[in-house]
Amino acid sequence: MKFNNRNVFISKKAQIGQNVKIGDNSSIYDSVIIGDNTIICDNCTIGEPLPSYYSNEEAYINPQTIIGGNSLIRSYSIIYAGCQIGEFFSTGHRVSIREHSIIGKHCRIGTVSDLQGNLKIGDYCWLHSNVHIGQDSKIGNFVFIYPYVVFTNDPTPPSNTLNGPSVDDFSQVAVFSILLPGVKIGKHCLIGAGSIVSKNIPDYQLTLGNPAKIIKDVREIKSRETGTSHYPWPYRFSRGMPWEDSDFDTWQNDKLR
Amino acid sequence: MKFNNRNVFISKKAQIGQNVKIGDNSSIYDSVIIGDNTIICDNCTIGEPLPSYYSNEEAYINPQTIIGGNSLIRSYSIIYAGCQIGEFFSTGHRVSIREHSIIGKHCRIGTVSDLQGNLKIGDYCWLHSNVHIGQDSKIGNFVFIYPYVVFTNDPTPPSNTLNGPSVDDFSQVAVFSILLPGVKIGKHCLIGAGSIVSKNIPDYQLTLGNPAKIIKDVREIKSRETGTSHYPWPYRFSRGMPWEDSDFDTWQNDKLR
Amino acid sequence: MKFNNRNVFISKKAQIGQNVKIGDNSSIYDSVIIGDNTIICDNCTIGEPLPSYYSNEEAYINPQTIIGGNSLIRSYSIIYAGCQIGEFFSTGHRVSIREHSIIGKHCRIGTVSDLQGNLKIGDYCWLHSNVHIGQDSKIGNFVFIYPYVVFTNDPTPPSNTLNGPSVDDFSQVAVFSILLPGVKIGKHCLIGAGSIVSKNIPDYQLTLGNPAKIIKDVREIKSRETGTSHYPWPYRFSRGMPWEDSDFDTWQNDKLR
Repeated sequence: MKFNNRNVFISKKAQIGQNVKIGDNSSIYDSVIIGDNTIICDNCTIGEPLPSYYSNEEAYINPQTIIGGNSLIRSYSIIYAGCQIGEFFSTGHRVSIREHSIIGKHCRIGTVSDLQGNLKIGDYCWLHSNVHIGQDSKIGNFVFIYPYVVFTNDPTPPSNTLNGPSVDDFSQVAVFSILLPGVKIGKHCLIGAGSIVSKNIPDYQLTLGNPAKIIKDVREIKSRETGTSHYPWPYRFSRGMPWEDSDFDTWQNDKLR
Repeated sequence: MKFNNRNVFISKKAQIGQNVKIGDNSSIYDSVIIGDNTIICDNCTIGEPLPSYYSNEEAYINPQTIIGGNSLIRSYSIIYAGCQIGEFFSTGHRVSIREHSIIGKHCRIGTVSDLQGNLKIGDYCWLHSNVHIGQDSKIGNFVFIYPYVVFTNDPTPPSNTLNGPSVDDFSQVAVFSILLPGVKIGKHCLIGAGSIVSKNIPDYQLTLGNPAKIIKDVREIKSRETGTSHYPWPYRFSRGMPWEDSDFDTWQNDKLR
Repeated sequence: MKFNNRNVFISKKAQIGQNVKIGDNSSIYDSVIIGDNTIICDNCTIGEPLPSYYSNEEAYINPQTIIGGNSLIRSYSIIYAGCQIGEFFSTGHRVSIREHSIIGKHCRIGTVSDLQGNLKIGDYCWLHSNVHIGQDSKIGNFVFIYPYVVFTNDPTPPSNTLNGPSVDDFSQVAVFSILLPGVKIGKHCLIGAGSIVSKNIPDYQLTLGNPAKIIKDVREIKSRETGTSHYPWPYRFSRGMPWEDSDFDTWQNDKLR
């Protein structure tokens, strides 16, 4: 059904791996490198030129863009030149990723999400639909960001200051939360829905409200269903994670060896 | 101006009704059935294949997709295979509707809205711009959902549990409200702007805040302009509704006969 | 790389200025006037027909659409017929601008933003990503609107009343704020993140919270870095502003002469 090679543009300066599919109406620009077995769906733009392209097209050289192997980029997504993205990447539809976004392996980014560039995301991060990650943000590994979360970066708008938030490994930020500029979230935190976080949060803290306050240790949250805590979540959830075929402790110990 | 039959793809396995228009650059995939007089604008994708298509293209069979007659799908919208949508449906631009969304007749869904699939919406529902309806959600009839409302479904993220909210007939959810997993909103409710609803709400309740609290019966809300209550709204608003040419009581009585 | 004249549609009834570029897969419809040196990127729709087009294509006449010179419209944007937009306009990707939006010069509108039409925006306004501006809104000059801000307009939903908010010169509205119907924000105000504004706000007020309350005069906000106030911001920020090459007072005095 798809992949009819209809109205496809692939630059001669792009390097396309083995067994790659490029969808109809998609454009792959100069200096894009796509790893083996990756699928770029229809109406995508990979290696979108930087703003300087428009001011001097002749002198412009598109920076290298890397999309790792075994990835699935869904339709209408735009990935700018200068991005480096690891293998087993997947996106929803209409994702926008600006230049110089460095993203690890096994990451997922949901429909309509908007990554503003000059940011860093580790491995196995899941960003759901419609998140907005400002420039200068840092996201660790195994981080979940839920829909409509915003990472801000300007402490005194408007200004030329960029001071993005950071979220450390295994933490989660629930729907409609705002991380204010420069805020640092520790490991294994849970930021509740609709929170506005204005202060740094230590590891393992459930944080909630506007302004967000630390409520309790996530290990003390009782599940209504089980009566025990769901957290730290890696002991309860493994789908798509590297400990899927063993368990979290075994995987951690194997890593340390 | 439009509908120049430029770069259009229509599967031979699709059934296109009488007097249907398909816009430029649009794709209609296998097993799509489009009712009479429906307009699919440009750059749309109808019958988008499910994720399993990418893992085994040869064995894959696209499930049936039904778009009712007299509908208007605006440009850049994506409707997945396996959706069933009633007649007189209309969308804004860039709407995404994932697989197995069951939507009644005379519904409207606004620009950039994202329906995550495996959900059910009744008749005459208006979802405005940029709403996010998670899987397992249930929406009755004559329900209004305003911009940036999110229906969540995972009580202990991340997990494999799906427990979507439900909203019953004639209720409205104002901008930026979050319905937490499994919450049930009754009939004729009004959820105020920016509410986070964590508990079930009985019929006719105005509910507001974070966490949302029941404020009063909607029939007690005094309008600044008229001094009387606007609610229940079907007595004050009929545009596009089945009681448009009579009145709400007459229409209800006719139904009961 | 771009601008290969691939799958481009330009109406014979459009007027295209000198040195204009039209991107691949873009459509320019009847009665569009594009000023000199403007760049329309790929996959854009300029002069999108109004809803009445679909009910009577033969009788329909597309109203005039003006895009000023030296503008940059990024890919996948849709600008409806009947808009008037000044010179040095720029957009992000996937911007939607409905009919009869009147926008001044040197304005910027970010990715995925949704302007619902029948609204007015002055000069040098920056609307960031994913803002939603309802019909009947009024925005002055030098106004900054940050991501996920919503301008609402229906005081008793659903109704046929349209009463949009207004924001006066030099004011800013931070992320995730909601302006309720008919609210008037004065000059040089700062509306903090996540505010729900239900009352008119006089000039120079820092306003915050749900419901939003006036906190203090913006000139009394002490910056953590400098110990002095960043506000009024035109004395601290000039990038892209008409006082960029002199200073705010000089520019103001020159204007008065």
